[in-house]
Amino acid sequence: MEPYELTIAAAAKEIAARQLSPVELTRSHLGRIEATDGHLGAYVLVVADAALDAAASAEREIVAGRSRGPLHGIPMALKDLIDVAGLPTTASSRVREGHRAAHDSTVAQRLSRAGSVLLGKTHTHEFAYGLTTPQTRNARAADRVAGGSSGGSAVAVAAGLATFSLGTDTGGSIRVPSALNGVVGLKPTYGLVPRHGVTSLSWSLDHVGPITRTVEDAGLVLAALVGHDPRDPASPAAPGLAAELRAEPDGDLTGLRVGVPRDYYSERVDPEVADAVGRAVTRLAGLGAVLVDVDIPLARYVQAAHWGLMVPEATAYHEQWLRSTPELYSPGVRLLLEAGELLSAVDYLRAQRARTLMRRAWARLFDDVDLVAAPTVTCTAVRADQPTVTWPDGSVEDVAATYVRFSSPANVVGVPALSLPVGVDGAGLPIGMQLIGRPLGEATVLKVGRAYEAVRGAGWRGDRVERADDFALR
Amino acid sequence: MEPYELTIAAAAKEIAARQLSPVELTRSHLGRIEATDGHLGAYVLVVADAALDAAASAEREIVAGRSRGPLHGIPMALKDLIDVAGLPTTASSRVREGHRAAHDSTVAQRLSRAGSVLLGKTHTHEFAYGLTTPQTRNARAADRVAGGSSGGSAVAVAAGLATFSLGTDTGGSIRVPSALNGVVGLKPTYGLVPRHGVTSLSWSLDHVGPITRTVEDAGLVLAALVGHDPRDPASPAAPGLAAELRAEPDGDLTGLRVGVPRDYYSERVDPEVADAVGRAVTRLAGLGAVLVDVDIPLARYVQAAHWGLMVPEATAYHEQWLRSTPELYSPGVRLLLEAGELLSAVDYLRAQRARTLMRRAWARLFDDVDLVAAPTVTCTAVRADQPTVTWPDGSVEDVAATYVRFSSPANVVGVPALSLPVGVDGAGLPIGMQLIGRPLGEATVLKVGRAYEAVRGAGWRGDRVERADDFALR
Repeated sequence: MEPYELTIAAAAKEIAARQLSPVELTRSHLGRIEATDGHLGAYVLVVADAALDAAASAEREIVAGRSRGPLHGIPMALKDLIDVAGLPTTASSRVREGHRAAHDSTVAQRLSRAGSVLLGKTHTHEFAYGLTTPQTRNARAADRVAGGSSGGSAVAVAAGLATFSLGTDTGGSIRVPSALNGVVGLKPTYGLVPRHGVTSLSWSLDHVGPITRTVEDAGLVLAALVGHDPRDPASPAAPGLAAELRAEPDGDLTGLRVGVPRDYYSERVDPEVADAVGRAVTRLAGLGAVLVDVDIPLARYVQAAHWGLMVPEATAYHEQWLRSTPELYSPGVRLLLEAGELLSAVDYLRAQRARTLMRRAWARLFDDVDLVAAPTVTCTAVRADQPTVTWPDGSVEDVAATYVRFSSPANVVGVPALSLPVGVDGAGLPIGMQLIGRPLGEATVLKVGRAYEAVRGAGWRGDRVERADDFALR
Repeated sequence: MEPYELTIAAAAKEIAARQLSPVELTRSHLGRIEATDGHLGAYVLVVADAALDAAASAEREIVAGRSRGPLHGIPMALKDLIDVAGLPTTASSRVREGHRAAHDSTVAQRLSRAGSVLLGKTHTHEFAYGLTTPQTRNARAADRVAGGSSGGSAVAVAAGLATFSLGTDTGGSIRVPSALNGVVGLKPTYGLVPRHGVTSLSWSLDHVGPITRTVEDAGLVLAALVGHDPRDPASPAAPGLAAELRAEPDGDLTGLRVGVPRDYYSERVDPEVADAVGRAVTRLAGLGAVLVDVDIPLARYVQAAHWGLMVPEATAYHEQWLRSTPELYSPGVRLLLEAGELLSAVDYLRAQRARTLMRRAWARLFDDVDLVAAPTVTCTAVRADQPTVTWPDGSVEDVAATYVRFSSPANVVGVPALSLPVGVDGAGLPIGMQLIGRPLGEATVLKVGRAYEAVRGAGWRGDRVERADDFALR
């Protein structure tokens, strides 16, 4: 049993009891990175010396009785779209060569204030513009994709290279790699976690959020990240939410209404995925939840709205570099960015209006249910060289298209969505379920996720997990 | 002295004291409409019978002791972009021929609940897409433009054809005609007055608000209009604002910081307008306000942002009719709508990003001042046949361009702006000053406007005004 295997909650308890020192915990992670990241490719940059300094400093504060809370001394990784003062933010792109951030992003600043220890920056699909992370291998099976774009962050947490990490999610980029690597990922309500200092893909769809080993841990990290930031124009006033997140849920789901989609999330989905999610939903019912059949509103407009918003926003964000150094982008990303120049303002506004209608329709849906439970991804991790998925009806779907299909509605609508592990398929590859809540309903989705975890066991089987012979630790 | 000359506050007092009946007040307005509107052209439609019925009903309720407040029994007019169940909403356009609204707009419903009496619907520039109202004459001088696009609403209030009215304001369409006709117009904070059921010009810039004879009246109408409406996606939660609006201000401006722009609002402005506003600002200082020189942030991007947002949003809104019945639009509006098809999504997003930067910069400006005082319009009402304005530096400006120049910043930024009369030019044409406040700062701008009115006299000289031999009543 190694320290790098601990959840935040377990490590924090041991640190508080002086059974574990932040330095020892950090060294354990650095050793694990040393041993495995050459193969996994989760990290762009590891800041070992700075991490050990930060850990030593955390240790001194804690010994002096000045604990900053459960993240104090906990090692973590940030997706390399997130600015940390003095470090490059590469966005895994040649375009950013020579970049160095002058200031901390809001989230880096908040984690630093909470006392957590930065181990390094993790790989993303170039500028987050994709649902895979080509540089990174799946934590459970070396020949499988990590998923993306926060693949480095998810693999780091799944394989013991960080106790937690942050990712970003514009169409599923936190939840997809979390599901495919068997960890927990939370895309919060739009704007709730401030995006100041985080490289944008599509600002009306971008979200920042935690990737952790348990739902409990996701709540601990979220609590440190929330709070109004005037530098993010979408940042809502959400008084009371931090207190709600700190409250200990009791695990009783009596009367809580869980929406079970009759459509959209039941179409073109791997039967093993559908079965695992179905069993998980049955467990929620066993805890007192009332299952309610629901129809996903305006489902046929989801993809058009998502692409219609994302493509031109990405192009607008990259406009300058696309003119000055187009050759530095990878061909696929450059193609997408250039395609964005062809869309008309009226096309974009059509997508924007579709989103407004969708938000209203989902708001009505949440009159009837407290959350919606659905698969996170249509299927498990595909082989790294597999470009498409073929469905039993003969239809062929691009991997990015199928990976984004179930996750993007929560981006378009802006509602919170938590992905948590609910089993593995016949090949041992993890399956994720997402719990989609109403705006600012994070406490509810976390409560339900924790209740599930309590009866089923976390992906990491409670506080400590068995070691595996593969890179993943379950 | 005729009842149609009364302000809301004065009429409400007489109604409460049973010195005036809503029916008598309504008959007075209908007589005034009969006598003058053939010349003025303020109304598209007058609903005399329905108005008398509503007035009789209000009278019965009041006599029975069931007063609904200060708007009960008060006759008013709605710009013909605002839906009233069972009536056409023509938008002053042939495109809307045969239209009939199925439901009340939120504002029509709220005024109806407050007991006010609808006299009819007033002219707008076709679909509000212009800063004049060609169908309508200025209330002060028959050869001058009414301003627009809420020209009918402003002229109705200025000439005694309604005690108050509602207009809409996308670049100045409430404030410009209010200033040019010597009445008070309030463009509230973006979203504060719900736009559900109001024909859109450019949804990210559109506002609905009152046109009245005094600032006090503007507050009375606003108080009846505010309140969250989930059907307007921009509707903010603004708890406490209604109570703030009902509180009676004391007229003391001690310590209140009034920003006086050093640039933008001082460029290409008629000297008589600048002088009148300068004198008004000096009066505010006499009431205790502290004058603070300010620079308008990012001023050179205002017009590009305004047009870059408005033109494609208008085209997106009209997309269907532009395809099915383009010939029904007037040539000028059709040209603008078709031009909107040529803008790219990236152009639009550039404007959107400029707005975000402007909002932030104005937010910082409001750290230093409580409001900004500036002319509402660069000059007074031009002759109806005058296409351009020539400035002393030789530059020539289109009338619409000059009319929108000072008013559009508050639309782009979304902050409240109140226009109130501060004098007349050498030709007797009214001059307006606008007080621009911070988001949801309506109570402050109204307080300052009322303090000015108290020492200077309202455009309508207090509760009652002298009759004029022209159509306007001052």
